[in-house]
Amino acid sequence: MSTGAAPFFGSRWVPAPAHVHELGLDAGLPLGFRAAGVAAGIKPSGRPDVGLLVCDGENPVSAARFTSSGTPAAPVILTRERCGLDSLRVVLANAGCANAATGRRGLEDAAKTQGAAAAAVGVATAEVALASTGAISHQLPVDAMIKGILGASSGLRRAGDADFQAAIQTTDAFEKRANLQVELPSGTVRLSAQCKGAGMISPRFATMLCFVQSDAELSADTADLLLGVCVARSFDRASVDGQLSTNDTAILMCSGASGVRVASESEDELLFGQALDALLRELAIKMVADGEGAARIARVVVRSGNQPGAETVARAVANSPLVKAALNGGDPNWGRIVQAVGAAMPGTAPLPVDIWIEGTQVCSAGAAIPFDEPALARAVSRREVEYEIGLPGEGAETEVFFSDLSHDYVSINADYTT
Amino acid sequence: MSTGAAPFFGSRWVPAPAHVHELGLDAGLPLGFRAAGVAAGIKPSGRPDVGLLVCDGENPVSAARFTSSGTPAAPVILTRERCGLDSLRVVLANAGCANAATGRRGLEDAAKTQGAAAAAVGVATAEVALASTGAISHQLPVDAMIKGILGASSGLRRAGDADFQAAIQTTDAFEKRANLQVELPSGTVRLSAQCKGAGMISPRFATMLCFVQSDAELSADTADLLLGVCVARSFDRASVDGQLSTNDTAILMCSGASGVRVASESEDELLFGQALDALLRELAIKMVADGEGAARIARVVVRSGNQPGAETVARAVANSPLVKAALNGGDPNWGRIVQAVGAAMPGTAPLPVDIWIEGTQVCSAGAAIPFDEPALARAVSRREVEYEIGLPGEGAETEVFFSDLSHDYVSINADYTT
Repeated sequence: MSTGAAPFFGSRWVPAPAHVHELGLDAGLPLGFRAAGVAAGIKPSGRPDVGLLVCDGENPVSAARFTSSGTPAAPVILTRERCGLDSLRVVLANAGCANAATGRRGLEDAAKTQGAAAAAVGVATAEVALASTGAISHQLPVDAMIKGILGASSGLRRAGDADFQAAIQTTDAFEKRANLQVELPSGTVRLSAQCKGAGMISPRFATMLCFVQSDAELSADTADLLLGVCVARSFDRASVDGQLSTNDTAILMCSGASGVRVASESEDELLFGQALDALLRELAIKMVADGEGAARIARVVVRSGNQPGAETVARAVANSPLVKAALNGGDPNWGRIVQAVGAAMPGTAPLPVDIWIEGTQVCSAGAAIPFDEPALARAVSRREVEYEIGLPGEGAETEVFFSDLSHDYVSINADYTT
Repeated sequence: MSTGAAPFFGSRWVPAPAHVHELGLDAGLPLGFRAAGVAAGIKPSGRPDVGLLVCDGENPVSAARFTSSGTPAAPVILTRERCGLDSLRVVLANAGCANAATGRRGLEDAAKTQGAAAAAVGVATAEVALASTGAISHQLPVDAMIKGILGASSGLRRAGDADFQAAIQTTDAFEKRANLQVELPSGTVRLSAQCKGAGMISPRFATMLCFVQSDAELSADTADLLLGVCVARSFDRASVDGQLSTNDTAILMCSGASGVRVASESEDELLFGQALDALLRELAIKMVADGEGAARIARVVVRSGNQPGAETVARAVANSPLVKAALNGGDPNWGRIVQAVGAAMPGTAPLPVDIWIEGTQVCSAGAAIPFDEPALARAVSRREVEYEIGLPGEGAETEVFFSDLSHDYVSINADYTT
C-alpha cells in the first residue's frame, strides 16, 4: 500500500491539525534523544534486530501502556513490575524473538539484557524499558542481544531513528515513523514516533510496539493522561485480525530539552494532546493498512443508545472474517454486516438496524432498501471504505479501524515458524 | 475431504455406539416420512433449491432449535412465532436465498410460501416449518418458490431424502446425510438426517439447517429434551469461522410409525439419546470438515476450574485466525495458542497454562518445554489435530471443533454476491 514517501497524514479519517507540521523522515529525533539499530543475528534474515533509544534529558518524563493479555511476554512483565514507568531513560527493543511463553528463564534472560543496556548506556536498570517482538515460545538469544546492545550503544545519534525503526520491524511491509513539529502558545516542540505492527493486532489497552518522543516538558501525570487518552482513541480502535499480542507496548518519553513547558489544563496541553492524538491515530491506521496481507482498510462507526453494545457490535463487524473477505473482494455484501450485528446482539430480535456504506443507505430498520448497486460497487473498491451502523437509541458512538482478509494473510500465517 | 462414500462415522472423536448400525445412503427415510427436492430457478446454477419433507404419522411429534441471532431471517421468525413446534408435519426448505434482512415483506413472502405448502400437502399452516439458506438481503422469489412447492409435493417419496438434501445445500462440498438403524430394548427404530452448512458457522444454540427424522414414538417433552441436549453437544461446539448465521435451524420429527415407544427416563430413552448424540456430533464434525475451504479440522479441549472461562478460552482458540492459519499450514506454532488463551483471559497474568498437541506437551505452566519437533510436525499434518489446554483448577471441561483458515476460504468469501 502506501509507503513512507507519501505525506504522513494520508487517511481521510485523520485530518492533520493546523498547528502540526510534517518534517521529513530524515529530520532526526527531538532534542534530547538518540537512537540506533543494529543487526545482531536474531532475525534469520540478518536484518537489523536490536534497537536502543536513549533520552538524555536531565529529568526525563515518561508514560507507558501494555497489553492486557493474561499471558504477557517476559519484557512486558519485567518492565511493568521493575521499572519506574514515569521516568524511563532507555528503551531496549528487539525483533526476531518475542520472549513470550518462556517462563522463569525468559524473565532472567530479559533481566540480563536490561542489566547490559543499563551498563552500556550508564543508567539504572529501573530506567531501561524492554520491548520484544517476533515468534512466541523461543528463548531469547542473550549473547546475541548483548552484542547488539554494545554495538547499538556505540552508534547512538539523533538521526538514528530510521535504524531503530528497522530493528523493531517484523512482517511490516513499510515503516511507520513520523517526525512532526507542533506549534504551541508557549513555543515550538517536536514529536517523533517509531511504530511496528502488522499482525496479531487487536489491542485492548496498548498495542504492538510504539515509541513516541518529544522535547516538550511535561509532568508525569500529564504524560500518563495524554498517552492513555490517545492510545484509547487510536491503537485501541484498530484491528487487523482480532488477535491480542503478548507483547504490545506503547511508551511516550519527554526530554524537556525544548524548554517549552506543557502545563496541566493549559491551552498548550490541549494542542499538544491534539497533535499526539493525530499522530497515534494516523499510526494506528497505517498499522491496519500494513496489516498482514491487507489490500484495503475500513472504518466502522456504530451509533446506539448503549456504549458497551456499540463497542461489541463494532468489534464483531471489524473481526468478522466474512465482512473482511468481502472488503478484500470489493464486494458490497452488506448481508454479512447484518449477520455480524445480529450475532453480537443475541436475544434482541428483530433488531431494527440501519446500515450505510460510503454514505449510501442499504438497510433501513433491518430490511433491504433499493440503492445504486454499480455506484456502490465502485465505492467499495477504493482504498478506504466506511461502514456506518445505526442501532436503536442515541448518545453512544464508537469506531474501529480494520483491514481486509486476503490470500496473503493466509500465506503469511500458514507457514510462519517453519 | 471425505465423501459420502466412506462410512458415516469417520471421526476418531465420535465412536459409533454398538447399538447403532449404518444403513446405506439409499436406504430411504424412516417409516412415515416422504421427501422431495426440485430445481425452481432460485439458485443461479439451476441446481435443486426447493425441498419438502413430510411426516405422515397420525400424531407427529417434533422439536426445534433456532439461531440466537438478533437479526434472524424471516423463516426463523415465522416458524418460531406461528408454528406448533411440538407437532410439525412439514418442512419447506430452500437454498439460494436466505430471506434475511428483508423486513415486513420478507415475513409476508415467507407466509405466502407457508400457505402454499400447507395447501399443496394438505396440512395446517402451523404445521409447516420454514427454513431458508443463501445470500442475505435478497427478497424471496415467491412465484419460483410456489412452482417448486407444487413440483416437490407431487414427487414426495420415502427415497426422496437425497433430492431434499441437494435442495438445501449451498457451498457444501459434500452431502451430510445419514440413515441409521438403532436397536432399543423395546424394538428397532430408524434415524435419518439431512444437514447443510459450510460457512457462517458458529452456532450458539442451533445451527445451519439440520433435519432429523425417526419412526420412534416420543413424547414432545422427550423430543425437546433430547434435541436440546444433543444440539448443545454437537452443533453448539462447532465453528468454521465464528460467524453466527441468521438462519440456523435444527428440527427433529418423529412419526411413531415403528410402534416402538421411547418412554421418558427409560433405557430406550438413554440409548435413543446416545444414537441421536452420535449422529449430531458426527454431522457437526462433518460440517466443520466441509467448512468453506477447510483442508484440516481440529478439536480443542480445555480443562479448568471454571466452566465459563473454559468456554471462552476454547472459542478464542477455535476462532483465532492465527491458530487456524497455522492448522492450515501444518505448523505446530503453539505460541499462537498461548496468545489466544492470554487474550481470552486478560488480567490473569501470568497464567500458568499447559498445552498438549496430539498428546505431546509443548508448554508447561506458561513456559516452553523441549519436545520432538519433527514428530510433532508430522502429527499436525494429519487430517484431524487435537489440542488440549490445561488451566488452573479442576472440574470444568469443554471442547470445540473447528476448521482451518485456507486460501479457499478467502476465495469463496471475497467474491460471493457479485
